Amino acid sequence: MTFAEQLSADLAVIEPALEKYLSRETGEGYDRIFEAAKYSAMAGGKRLRPVIVLEFCRLCGGDVQKALPFACALEMIHTYSLIHDDLPCMDNDDLRRGRPTCHKAFDEATAVLAGDGLLTAAFETAAAAEGVSAETALACIRILGQAAGMNGMIGGQVLDMGAEHRKISLDELRLLQSLKTGCLLRAACELGCTVAGKTDAHTLDMARTYGDKLGLAFQIRDDMLDIDGDTATLGKTVGKDEKSEKSTFPSLLGMEECRRLVASLTDEAVQAVSGQPESAFLVELARSLTNRTN
Amino acid sequence: MTFAEQLSADLAVIEPALEKYLSRETGEGYDRIFEAAKYSAMAGGKRLRPVIVLEFCRLCGGDVQKALPFACALEMIHTYSLIHDDLPCMDNDDLRRGRPTCHKAFDEATAVLAGDGLLTAAFETAAAAEGVSAETALACIRILGQAAGMNGMIGGQVLDMGAEHRKISLDELRLLQSLKTGCLLRAACELGCTVAGKTDAHTLDMARTYGDKLGLAFQIRDDMLDIDGDTATLGKTVGKDEKSEKSTFPSLLGMEECRRLVASLTDEAVQAVSGQPESAFLVELARSLTNRTN
Repeated sequence: MTFAEQLSADLAVIEPALEKYLSRETGEGYDRIFEAAKYSAMAGGKRLRPVIVLEFCRLCGGDVQKALPFACALEMIHTYSLIHDDLPCMDNDDLRRGRPTCHKAFDEATAVLAGDGLLTAAFETAAAAEGVSAETALACIRILGQAAGMNGMIGGQVLDMGAEHRKISLDELRLLQSLKTGCLLRAACELGCTVAGKTDAHTLDMARTYGDKLGLAFQIRDDMLDIDGDTATLGKTVGKDEKSEKSTFPSLLGMEECRRLVASLTDEAVQAVSGQPESAFLVELARSLTNRTN
Repeated sequence: MTFAEQLSADLAVIEPALEKYLSRETGEGYDRIFEAAKYSAMAGGKRLRPVIVLEFCRLCGGDVQKALPFACALEMIHTYSLIHDDLPCMDNDDLRRGRPTCHKAFDEATAVLAGDGLLTAAFETAAAAEGVSAETALACIRILGQAAGMNGMIGGQVLDMGAEHRKISLDELRLLQSLKTGCLLRAACELGCTVAGKTDAHTLDMARTYGDKLGLAFQIRDDMLDIDGDTATLGKTVGKDEKSEKSTFPSLLGMEECRRLVASLTDEAVQAVSGQPESAFLVELARSLTNRTN
């Protein structure tokens, strides 16, 4: 299978599973919350995190089907974080994935609750996973909780809020990024290995290295797209960072150095997994993100 | 031990455990989020939910110490729901437990994130519980997730938002209440039984009945306190429901009928557990809430 075929195949299992987990119509007058959660979750993101979960599971010789609930749980956490980040009291964004943000399409209260609902549904989904041992499910829930928690993604978001309208150092920016976006990408790699039962130090180290390098490359490219990207292609407003006087990788290092860094980090991610059987997809995935335009 | 002594003993284990779970100072610039989470979590609520977890565990002959992480997880979920409910886009409250609400003491973005952090920490804490089997921990996480999720507490909050400025029926109000406050109280009872390993239908039925009856009595009393309570004693603003033209039990049934209902529901809760050894505390607890002033 080519990279594109494999990616399509992964998306073809992720999309319906995600929709199914979020489809609990009740007829009791609160269906609106499921609508709002699905509005944001089914808006056609790249599904980078769940794809990585499935592919690390495959790399480790595991059953991809068993990784699906955890892959979807991670995507729910990612989606909730976008909904809350877009709120007026946070980044105050109107556009996400080419559509009005959740609080614009619904209202602010519904967006807060849809985010809360997705975060809770992530743990519900993980705790209801079938075909894995209770120990494995619990290990996955710990990975999800730590990555998403106050010492993970939420801590990163706090640093991000504190980094507006002031210049921060490269070290501060790297810490911020490693928490805000790195933690979930690293978790994606770890989840795949954990479901497959390969949790030896060597495998987890390889997974974390891939996640860290890919995560940093991804974020640098994200910052670059805020400068040279296109709102229509990107599906979100560009030029936000400059407007909010945010320190970004390009503002601290310049575009040229950013391009060089993305390339070398991608090489390091590739190197981490190459040599493993079935690594072709993850190698291609890392390379495909280097020049992404959305 | 008297009821008061037992309650003190429970609080003496709950308070420090809760504080410990939320104390992960990092020195990395995002300690503020732990401060905000602790500000709201350590504000001296009644701890009704965690106390019930411990006492149902005791009732079922379990080791109360093992129930502690789940008791604290439930209290974190309760606290997060209060923080988000108090936000300007929700109930817009300035006062909670006698102190400025989280978004008043910090800011709105921090309050959203502190709520998110507490919800995530709840599942982290539950998944890290020691001394219970992985199956038991997972069963408890499922109880927490369902009770807090879109078909539980969040669904209730959605109904509550939709019930402002219009008259709803008693049936609608009971559904709203059973989701918004009933689910977590029922979960408290179930968690205690589950940690103790008593999950036969009869025990769970008894637990749910106690939780349901107590939850409804509690909510009716809550609505009454919004009318005849005192802001200083209560620690939150009274008269809110009338101001927001909310349908409440007193507005639909009158105060006298509410008083009668609280008494009969309390009797039913008491009846559910009486006959069990060690039920004295839960009986007293239900009775003590009947005439509470805060």
